[in-house]
Amino acid sequence: MTDTNREWLLAERPTGEPDMDCFELRETGVPSPAPGELLVRTRFLSVDPYMRGRMRGAESYAEPWAVGDPLKGGVVGEVVESASDAYAPGDLVTGEGRWADYATLDADDVAPVDPAVADPEAYLGVLGMPGRTAYFGLLEVGEPKPGDTVVVSGAAGAVGSVVGQIAKRAGCRVVGFAGSDEKTAWLTEDLGFDAAINYEATDDYRAALDEAAPDGVDVYYDNVGGPITDAVFTQLNLDARVAVCGQIAHYNDEEVPTGPRKLPQLISVRARVEGLLVGDFATRFGEASERLGRWVASGELEHRETIVEGLENAPDAFLGLFAGDNIGKQVVRVSAANQE
Amino acid sequence: MTDTNREWLLAERPTGEPDMDCFELRETGVPSPAPGELLVRTRFLSVDPYMRGRMRGAESYAEPWAVGDPLKGGVVGEVVESASDAYAPGDLVTGEGRWADYATLDADDVAPVDPAVADPEAYLGVLGMPGRTAYFGLLEVGEPKPGDTVVVSGAAGAVGSVVGQIAKRAGCRVVGFAGSDEKTAWLTEDLGFDAAINYEATDDYRAALDEAAPDGVDVYYDNVGGPITDAVFTQLNLDARVAVCGQIAHYNDEEVPTGPRKLPQLISVRARVEGLLVGDFATRFGEASERLGRWVASGELEHRETIVEGLENAPDAFLGLFAGDNIGKQVVRVSAANQE
Repeated sequence: MTDTNREWLLAERPTGEPDMDCFELRETGVPSPAPGELLVRTRFLSVDPYMRGRMRGAESYAEPWAVGDPLKGGVVGEVVESASDAYAPGDLVTGEGRWADYATLDADDVAPVDPAVADPEAYLGVLGMPGRTAYFGLLEVGEPKPGDTVVVSGAAGAVGSVVGQIAKRAGCRVVGFAGSDEKTAWLTEDLGFDAAINYEATDDYRAALDEAAPDGVDVYYDNVGGPITDAVFTQLNLDARVAVCGQIAHYNDEEVPTGPRKLPQLISVRARVEGLLVGDFATRFGEASERLGRWVASGELEHRETIVEGLENAPDAFLGLFAGDNIGKQVVRVSAANQE
Repeated sequence: MTDTNREWLLAERPTGEPDMDCFELRETGVPSPAPGELLVRTRFLSVDPYMRGRMRGAESYAEPWAVGDPLKGGVVGEVVESASDAYAPGDLVTGEGRWADYATLDADDVAPVDPAVADPEAYLGVLGMPGRTAYFGLLEVGEPKPGDTVVVSGAAGAVGSVVGQIAKRAGCRVVGFAGSDEKTAWLTEDLGFDAAINYEATDDYRAALDEAAPDGVDVYYDNVGGPITDAVFTQLNLDARVAVCGQIAHYNDEEVPTGPRKLPQLISVRARVEGLLVGDFATRFGEASERLGRWVASGELEHRETIVEGLENAPDAFLGLFAGDNIGKQVVRVSAANQE
């Protein structure tokens, strides 16, 4: 084991789209685990759109990072030193850690990673926070019923790709919006979506929806916001449910964005629009993990990860989320399996 | 009984704010009731903001009127001729009828009016559709809990004034937006609102809310839309509920109105925004009528009607809704109690 470590800090708050000036890679020492802690060598690091919110100064659901703070997120890593009875060196665990080569994590705050179920990086996607977000957001907020038409924006992303597949299991017609032909092909050919719309290939989202969702929209799972969402709102059916999970189109906005007002139309169709955060379902994470793990292990639930190599490229991986670079879950490989 | 009758027709569809060109008063005969029908002499006629929607060509929750069609709405009237065993001449009834001196109504579609409970015109307001809208919209969509702060827009209107009083019964702090000092005084001095904001006296609704609702907003009952609603959305608490009942600020818009996008913020507070229409609660109208009637009869639930005199002035009464002329329920007196 090396005695050098690197970790990413928030160097400055972004204005609009973040750039490399916002990030600083600092060399530091390898920490020692306090009693109850584990020293973990990071294998994979998660970058997620919600992190843009933590880079702002404003209070939100996720505590803002201070300038100079280490960046944090979901990690999968290997225990290299344990000060806890719960885990031994060599164990793979997942939890919330620093964007670093090595980090200490409280043994109570991590969960085991079972490579027999899926590759470790899947524990940051379909078997991690994004998968649980899809599960609870769709089932508890979207409330799909068999025969419903479910539309998903950001459908080829970590959350959307799981939403669509669960909606299919629930007996729904599923339509996804994604940003390339490669993505839409993945949705319809591999994931079983009934239709997918490449929003880069058309400006008339409403016409595309008319064709892909001719019976209107009963559930809209929104990861994106902006003009796609505006179009979907015009197609909502009576008693439609809108699960507002993400609004990545607006995360880099400096001013409150404007757009068509949607409340007048909500009266006509008595739609329900609800913001969701997966943490609100924390008491039921076991249920989601059990089902998602079973479906993944059996091959019934497809997943895909886009891997950027090297801790030094973590900011690029994060910034790529806003350009739609990822298919499925975007992760960063920080170290290889057999590394000493 | 006279043998002449007058009724209002939709003469043309409005563009933007309706004007008198949209209305035509036609002289016609007094109809005869078919079996099962009643001939009713109109005492009071209801004008309601939702009627603006029926004047459009576009399909909505309320069937659009055709040009040349008689205008219709809630009426209270006296049975002058009955072809039904259910009612006799002299009975007061309420139902959906034409804007006319006389109209036939199906006996199955009317309800009795009990002058011992309240003046007949109250059956078009607190004891009619607006009261039921307030009751179900607040309790079923807003879901107020004791200690919640409930904000109501259009608070001095037929619906809002009842919403606020029911919210007080439910143990809430109640804040209303209304458009004059006379209205806000009515809310706080007579109806028991904890605070009221005259939106004509300030441009900074958010600062006014900060003062009137210092603990934020748990339930927002929206009758209005526009900038008031934008301000309230910035103050929503975690798990807030927004009942979208009306959007009178936008009913005369010819283009889809634009404004600040609200979905990003819904994620932060996991608010639920839901459109409502009272007809969806039709199977429970008996429950609402019983409670509202009891509270009105006992004097616990205040109500007020603004009365315009004469069928010939019905369009003026309707147009006055958009200028905020009414305090409480706007009605038109078409005939007096003792008229022959």
